[in-house]
Amino acid sequence: MSVLKITIMGIDGYLGWPLAMHLFSRGHEVSGVDNFSRRRNVEEIGGHSATPIKPMKMRLKAYEKSSGNKIRFYQGDLIKTGFTEDVIAKERPDCIVHLGEIPSAPYSMIDVDHCNYTQTNNIVGTNNILFAMRKHAQKCHLLKLGTMGEYGTPNVDIPEGFFEIEYRGRKDKLPFPRQPGSWYHLSKVHDTFNIIFACKIWGLASTDIMQGVVHGLMTDEMVNDDLLTRFDFDEVWGTALNRFCAQAVIGHELTPYGKGGQTRGFIALRDSIECMTITAENPPADGEYRVFNQFDETYSVNELAKHVVSVGEEFGLDAKIWSIENPRVEKEEHYYNPDHERLPSLGFKPVHSLDAELRRTIPKLIQYRDRIEEKKGVIMPSVKWRG
Amino acid sequence: MSVLKITIMGIDGYLGWPLAMHLFSRGHEVSGVDNFSRRRNVEEIGGHSATPIKPMKMRLKAYEKSSGNKIRFYQGDLIKTGFTEDVIAKERPDCIVHLGEIPSAPYSMIDVDHCNYTQTNNIVGTNNILFAMRKHAQKCHLLKLGTMGEYGTPNVDIPEGFFEIEYRGRKDKLPFPRQPGSWYHLSKVHDTFNIIFACKIWGLASTDIMQGVVHGLMTDEMVNDDLLTRFDFDEVWGTALNRFCAQAVIGHELTPYGKGGQTRGFIALRDSIECMTITAENPPADGEYRVFNQFDETYSVNELAKHVVSVGEEFGLDAKIWSIENPRVEKEEHYYNPDHERLPSLGFKPVHSLDAELRRTIPKLIQYRDRIEEKKGVIMPSVKWRG
Repeated sequence: MSVLKITIMGIDGYLGWPLAMHLFSRGHEVSGVDNFSRRRNVEEIGGHSATPIKPMKMRLKAYEKSSGNKIRFYQGDLIKTGFTEDVIAKERPDCIVHLGEIPSAPYSMIDVDHCNYTQTNNIVGTNNILFAMRKHAQKCHLLKLGTMGEYGTPNVDIPEGFFEIEYRGRKDKLPFPRQPGSWYHLSKVHDTFNIIFACKIWGLASTDIMQGVVHGLMTDEMVNDDLLTRFDFDEVWGTALNRFCAQAVIGHELTPYGKGGQTRGFIALRDSIECMTITAENPPADGEYRVFNQFDETYSVNELAKHVVSVGEEFGLDAKIWSIENPRVEKEEHYYNPDHERLPSLGFKPVHSLDAELRRTIPKLIQYRDRIEEKKGVIMPSVKWRG
Repeated sequence: MSVLKITIMGIDGYLGWPLAMHLFSRGHEVSGVDNFSRRRNVEEIGGHSATPIKPMKMRLKAYEKSSGNKIRFYQGDLIKTGFTEDVIAKERPDCIVHLGEIPSAPYSMIDVDHCNYTQTNNIVGTNNILFAMRKHAQKCHLLKLGTMGEYGTPNVDIPEGFFEIEYRGRKDKLPFPRQPGSWYHLSKVHDTFNIIFACKIWGLASTDIMQGVVHGLMTDEMVNDDLLTRFDFDEVWGTALNRFCAQAVIGHELTPYGKGGQTRGFIALRDSIECMTITAENPPADGEYRVFNQFDETYSVNELAKHVVSVGEEFGLDAKIWSIENPRVEKEEHYYNPDHERLPSLGFKPVHSLDAELRRTIPKLIQYRDRIEEKKGVIMPSVKWRG
């Protein structure tokens, strides 16, 4: 395997930080960019990470001390065209892993300003990367994080990005229709279309990863708590599963929204990182745009809650489930059968089940119970899709 | 027919101005918004309208003098959330005709700044309208101008927005796949997805018009030259047909790009305005999102050039065709068969053929030949898709 120069956009985030450490442990040379917007945006709605997150300088120092590896870090904002261009011109990476976007559906639904902020931030940041690649890193592989939520929940199987159709007796291979369910999910669809176009006209190469919901907290590189990644549990930044875990730990009922039949694809944090590593190490051809659906198992919201109750019992937690009104507009019972063959065909084998991850996550959250207790007021939903 | 309160976003533009006069002549109450960006953006690339366009104050005065009608005008920028909200709160229109976007593919392709400007301007302006409608005009009908270019040129028929598919034995009705061919066309696709979502979650009503290329210059309400609409003929703001007309008038070869088999849908300005009028007068149901493909005839670029040569001869012009390298990335020979049944089903009958419009356009351009001659340096292409 050849050593890759990899730049991670959004290296301070939930995925970015553990991915950086893992790629380094695989022997790659890693640099990263962040504007710390996630920290600010979580603060804005009154939340904080259940795990205490060190300032970037201390994170980098702690990682260097434990591993001997030095990550080059650039503080700045991808929406500043000149900054993004400068970083890419200086690094000339083989691969950019683009995690540098605002990733919350509820945050984008707060009001018009949060909608516009999410969409312009994500679109302009991605456009700036594409234009900078074209100018300074034409052979670079853009590994872009999209979301399974781009597809919505159609009543047919979901292929990986494209499908062959016959329509009125003629055939073509076309992008599979997208039905995103929030201003945030829409921004990811906008990105997808922009990236397809850039690959087509400029011959750039990209893997657009439609990722399921990631769960879990600990990776092998987190050898001490200074190296932990964040774990958000509030209504805006926490996933349903994170909220259930936090609720179980502080003795609050778990609160699935509506009927709880909403079904999504899930993947463990360690498996997600393994997938991104495999993808980076197996780049597309020049000019190729490809889509990987990256998830392992599908669960309904109710099933998630049951798993948390059951694993919670092993740690002495007595959790109850209490369904509440759904603040979102989404189908609560539906067909869901997305393909996910392309990553396994490159050698990916999921090894971390939901229960296995919960057995690592819950005790760590119990250790930080006070931090959850302190911010328990922001777990229940206040952002409503219908306004 | 009931009288409608109609607000036109982009009332200073090629379509907005003649539409305003026509809607008033149909008895509706018309107001309008513009930030004059089109005037500035055409100036920026060194062009101007072949027809001299009066400042808005003088246009409004000239129209009032000739018709007795008063149009309420708001100068401002739709990307300013407060401004857009104020206008919609004050007008509480029955219908918003949203033409207030940057409409040029080549302009969006100049560089990263023009790409980001086009996309953020169009997306944020539309989002601001949607949020303001939700707050102040829940029953308002958003008549939004998209483009046939959202679909690209697939190898199958193009339905009006949605299609029923069977995929692996299961069925659903889904948005027809979009394959836009420039940053500008992408912005229109982004809008489309955002509007579908707003209608779904808030029950807003919208007609998303996928309009073909509009041709022609004169409408019945233009009773004197102070009331003319603009006619751009430069490489950035002029359509292929407009460029051919201008070239014929000044004795320059007509310059189709590449093989010239690129085929698009076309509609006469007077027919386009009639379509928008019919659409406004036949609104969708509450919460309905519908798509109309709005064009009349399809022509290849080579066919357009031949029509200009032939009609030009009637006015003593001796035009030649001289194909040049295609600056764009597009299929130059392809299948093209889009549906356009929904507007005829509401009573639309196209009455103005390409040749009939050319017979009205060319003499008016001959009258302003000096203005074309003055700016002939910006007709030939310099903006290239591959950069």
